[in-house]
Formats: sequence, structure tokens, C-alpha cells
Amino acid sequence: MDDRVHDHAATLVDWSARIEAGDDVVLRVAEGAHDLAVAVAEALGRRGANLVTVADADEVHRAYLRAHDGDFETDPAYELALYDRADSVLSLDGGRNTAALADVPADRSQQYARARSGIREARLDTDWVSTVHPTRSLAQQADMAYEAYREFVYGAVLRDWESLAAEMDRLKEVFDEGSEVRIVAAGTDLTLSIAGRTAVNSAASVAYDSHNLPSGEVFTAPFDPDGVVSFDVPMTIRGRQVRDARLTFEDGNLVDWAAAQGEDVLTEVVETDAGSRRLGELGVGMNRGIDRPTGRILFDEKMAGTVHLALGRAYDACLPEGESGNESAVHVDLITEMDEDSRLEVDGEVIQRNGVFRWEDGFEA
Amino acid sequence: MDDRVHDHAATLVDWSARIEAGDDVVLRVAEGAHDLAVAVAEALGRRGANLVTVADADEVHRAYLRAHDGDFETDPAYELALYDRADSVLSLDGGRNTAALADVPADRSQQYARARSGIREARLDTDWVSTVHPTRSLAQQADMAYEAYREFVYGAVLRDWESLAAEMDRLKEVFDEGSEVRIVAAGTDLTLSIAGRTAVNSAASVAYDSHNLPSGEVFTAPFDPDGVVSFDVPMTIRGRQVRDARLTFEDGNLVDWAAAQGEDVLTEVVETDAGSRRLGELGVGMNRGIDRPTGRILFDEKMAGTVHLALGRAYDACLPEGESGNESAVHVDLITEMDEDSRLEVDGEVIQRNGVFRWEDGFEA
Repeated sequence: MDDRVHDHAATLVDWSARIEAGDDVVLRVAEGAHDLAVAVAEALGRRGANLVTVADADEVHRAYLRAHDGDFETDPAYELALYDRADSVLSLDGGRNTAALADVPADRSQQYARARSGIREARLDTDWVSTVHPTRSLAQQADMAYEAYREFVYGAVLRDWESLAAEMDRLKEVFDEGSEVRIVAAGTDLTLSIAGRTAVNSAASVAYDSHNLPSGEVFTAPFDPDGVVSFDVPMTIRGRQVRDARLTFEDGNLVDWAAAQGEDVLTEVVETDAGSRRLGELGVGMNRGIDRPTGRILFDEKMAGTVHLALGRAYDACLPEGESGNESAVHVDLITEMDEDSRLEVDGEVIQRNGVFRWEDGFEA
Repeated sequence: MDDRVHDHAATLVDWSARIEAGDDVVLRVAEGAHDLAVAVAEALGRRGANLVTVADADEVHRAYLRAHDGDFETDPAYELALYDRADSVLSLDGGRNTAALADVPADRSQQYARARSGIREARLDTDWVSTVHPTRSLAQQADMAYEAYREFVYGAVLRDWESLAAEMDRLKEVFDEGSEVRIVAAGTDLTLSIAGRTAVNSAASVAYDSHNLPSGEVFTAPFDPDGVVSFDVPMTIRGRQVRDARLTFEDGNLVDWAAAQGEDVLTEVVETDAGSRRLGELGVGMNRGIDRPTGRILFDEKMAGTVHLALGRAYDACLPEGESGNESAVHVDLITEMDEDSRLEVDGEVIQRNGVFRWEDGFEA
């Protein structure tokens, strides 16, 4: 087996999930993630953790959902007990067909999800981590050859996380102390308030309250946006392509939106509820292993040299204790490349210019 | 998908496991049993059962066991809770390599099994059923082409179980009322007492206390064997071939044993403990879909026209309430073909001659 699969497993188990002897681990394995599951099982065995392996097989799930009448039992006790008592849930994504669930009626999936909200909560209460094993299906989604996609995924996953976490802490500090962010790029000049908000250093580890591997972003919950922002990284939202979306805010309110492609789905998102017209997240991608968009938000939003904003729900971790941020049923990320003639300012000070942070070589003050 | 896979799933869910709406089902899926898992998930969805899919992947298990130091936690609570609260556990065997666990140290596997005896008990307390999805690996073990092996498996699984159960009830009745069985075949003339013992109609359904699909045998717990028995169906015992084994009993005691091949492993079995020198089971194969040995006891012992005896442990179900039968750490089946010039007698009456039961066409009285 490729050494990188073992390195991926070790990163997941040690850096991300901080597994220790005696931990009760549920390993969820997608249909194409077998090799990574073998490597993770070996790492868990070596560390003396307990292991229950759950098959997270899209085709099995599809068959079950399509055949069911939709009247699902609420949080079946046997499954709830498994996740309730687990210490960690490690999910290995990587299917054989990203469209495997395409013909499951949307309301069936929603009924299933609603009936299992207690199980979901129990899972989110553990030290959970989601990661991705590179499969041919995901390479296809990324428009890449399989071998090149593997290079890409391991480039994103096998970082020096400790040093990246330290670098991200610098940006977190700037955000935590700052009041106003200004983003300037092609088609973008937007100011956002971040006063009183706390940034999260998303360093791909439960020790940082970060549950994705790879990660590599610093995010916070902004408010009162003013200006225009253009998103030049192509996105897939609800299965549909969205290109060159553009949002205009005046005094905190969304006054206009448009997109060169997929404007209808953008409109759907915006019109969901009151909160979907406001921003819930400002994130800055800092993972230099991610050098291109691949159609999966897990990777795209972490891409170094990008900034993303989300319409909708804010994360509690960014808000003062007891304060509730923007509430919404949606959280949809949109991404802007910070390339030529771009800058990111906090309280008038340039933190990043043309994608280069002020603490990096090549930064132009 | 082959219709037979759906028929197999329906037989498992309806005839064997008697699944009803709201049942909490754990589906254990071997690495090669994906297609059957999809069909079973569909059947479970249609019946409104709940579903948790556990990956029973040999290579994942091997990696975990080899890496672990062997000091396993006793019955981890999260896994125990899953099986404790489950109504049914359906196991779909069918790996990709029957030797996948060949390099796991035997004591490691034993330590693991011992540490999980509570989980095993909880699983056996459910309406559990084990079945086999035909894989290329199992075809290879059976020395058969893949397509021919699929024919074979579906021939064994897709029976008219209701009518076979009725036929097997006839033999059960004869055994329940009888006192002495005599088996006569090439190299075999053995009498066994069955007085006071209860036969089990193993009709591949939890409704018959039968937990294998396929099944198709009637078995009881004999005692006081006298005479000689030769086993002409080749067996694999502890990974080693045993051919033409022969046991000689005098007044209930094993006085001699021999085998043309694998006599050493037969000796190992016999010398395990006091109970391993006695017989724990007399079984009569009645599944006419099984027309040849394939190296898996699940199928071989059910083969129509064979009789099997087991050295070692007897099943409680065959014994009078409160009485304990033969106790042993082992239960090793050996099989005799009932072909030309053979007969099975109960209390002097011929029940089967040359492999044909007295209620079948062609029986010579």
C-alpha cells in the first residue's frame, strides 16, 4: 500500500482525532475508501483503541431510502446508543459515484435526516473528524486524472499542521483584535464588521475545534457588510453550477445579487429566510497544498490565496458567550481568489496583498 | 442486478429472519457481499425496518488485530449497546480472499474473541441469520467457476423452504419417537442411541431456531455409539485437509481413529478433552440444492444424501430440559455419503435407503 495512505491514517488518528488507548472509535467507511480504512484500523490497533466499522455505502443507502415509505422511526435506540457512547467518529469519504444518490427523492432524504437528528447530535458531540480518500469518482468530479488527484489530496492532507496552526494563529489574533475587514479584489470592494467576534483557527484537529481533514482556514462571523463582492471560483450549489456570483450590500443589507451562471439557485438560496440574506461567515483559506478548486467545498474553501463568505448561518464558536449570530436554514459558501491587485485589510492595515500575507516572503508593504 | 440476488434478500429477510416494521436490524457485510447488501437494504426499507450497516471487512480486521498488542478491552460498551438493543443481526459472508486472515497470530484472534464474549452472546440473543453471497473467492475455494458457483449457491438458498420444512418434520418425528439409529454404508456400520433426545428441524428460519441460510438438515444429540463409521466427504479442519477419516466406537467409547490424509489434525481434535472423544451431533442433510461438497461446512453438512456426525459439543436444543449433553471445547463435523448399499434405520425400520427416504419416489422397501 502507498505510504501516503498510512501517513494519511496517522495524521487522522494522531493530529486530527487525538485517539488514545481505550477510546471507543466508530469508523465510517465509504464504498471507495477501503484502503484508507485498512490503514486507519492498523493505526487504531497500534494505539489500543476500540473499533466498530460502519459501512457508509451510498448504494446501500440509496436502496434503503427509495424502498422506505418515508415514515422513519425517530432515532432508533440501538444506533443512538452506539454514537452516544462513542468517543470518536471518523468518517472516510470517497465513493465510487458522486451521483449515487441522484434518484433518491429529496423529501425522503430530508425525512430520514429529520428522524435522525438525535443521532446526528450524538455524533457531533464526539471527537468527530471527516476526511476523504482519493477515489476515481472524486478525481472525475475534480476534472483530474486519478494519479494527479491523489497527489492533490495528499498535498492537501499531509501538511506540517503544527506550523500551519501557528501561522493561522497570527491571522486569528489580527481578527480577534480587529473591528473592520476590507476585501479588495477584481470586482470586489467590501467592508465587514468583526468587532467582538472570535475567529476560529481551523487546523484540522479536534484540539482546535476543527473537524475536517484537510482543513486550513481562519474564519469568523462578520456583520454589517457594505459594498460589492464577486466570487470567481466556480461552485456547485445543490448540484448546480454557479459562476461569477456577485452580491451587493448597503448598510448591512443585501440589495442586489446576480450570477453569470446559476443565478436561479443563488436566488433560491437568498430567498430561503431572513438569515439567508445576511452573511454568516468570513473565511480565509490558508492551505497551500490546495492550489485549485476541485468542486468539493471541503477543499475549495481552504485554498490558499482565497477568501470565502457564506450566506446564512453563523458558527456559535465565533460569537460572544450567550449571543446568537445570524440564524438561517442555509450556509452556502462562495469563494473569491485574492490574486493580482487584491488586498485584505483589518482596521486599515494591509494583512494580505495579492494573496501574500504580511509575514510571508514577497509581501509588498 | 441478477434477480436471484433480490430473491436471496427476500428469502433472508422474510423466511429466515422474519423481519417486521420497526425491527432494529444490524446488517454485517463482508467485503465481497456489496450487491446482496444493496438488495437486503431495499427489502428492509420496504418492510419499514431500521438499518445499521456494519462493515465486516477481513482486511480491516486483519490490520487491526495484527497492530493491537492483544490486551483487548472487554466488551466495549458502545458496541455491546448496539447488539444488545438490536432485534436482528443479518451477516452477509462472502469475502475476496478466504486466506485474508492467514497471518493473524492465532492467540491474537483468540484474545479478541474472548474479550468480546458478551458482544457475541448479545448477538446470539437476537434473531440472527448468517448467509453467503457467492464471490469469486468462494468459487475458488469450491474449485468451481464463478458462474457455476453462483448457480450452486442460489440452488441451495432459493428452495421451497415451506415444503422442505414439512418434509424435515417427518424425519424429526421419526427421530423424536425413536430410540436407536443405525447407519450402514461403505465402511460404516454404526448404532447410536437417541432415546429421550429431541431433533431440530433446521429449516433456515429463526421460526425453527435455525440461523443459517441455506440450511436443510435434521439433527439430534446421540449417545452410546457402537461400531465403525467412515467419512468419505473431504473436509477442511483447522485449515488442513482430512480425507477418509474413520472412527471406531465400542460401548460408547472411541477406541480407534484413522484417516488417509490429515490424521494428525484428527488426533488433535480427538485429544482436546474428554468430550471430544464422544459424539455431540447426528445430522441428516436434506437440501437437494446442495449436490456436492464445496469446502464450507455451512453447505456441506446440508447436502442431501449425506449423514454427518460431530465429535464434541452437543446442542442444548436436543436435550431434555435441564439435562446437559456432551460438553467439549470442540464441535467438528465429519460427513458420510449415503449412496449405494447404504441405509439409515431407526429402531430397525429403514428410513432411508441408498439416499432415498421412505416417503420419496423410488424408495425400495
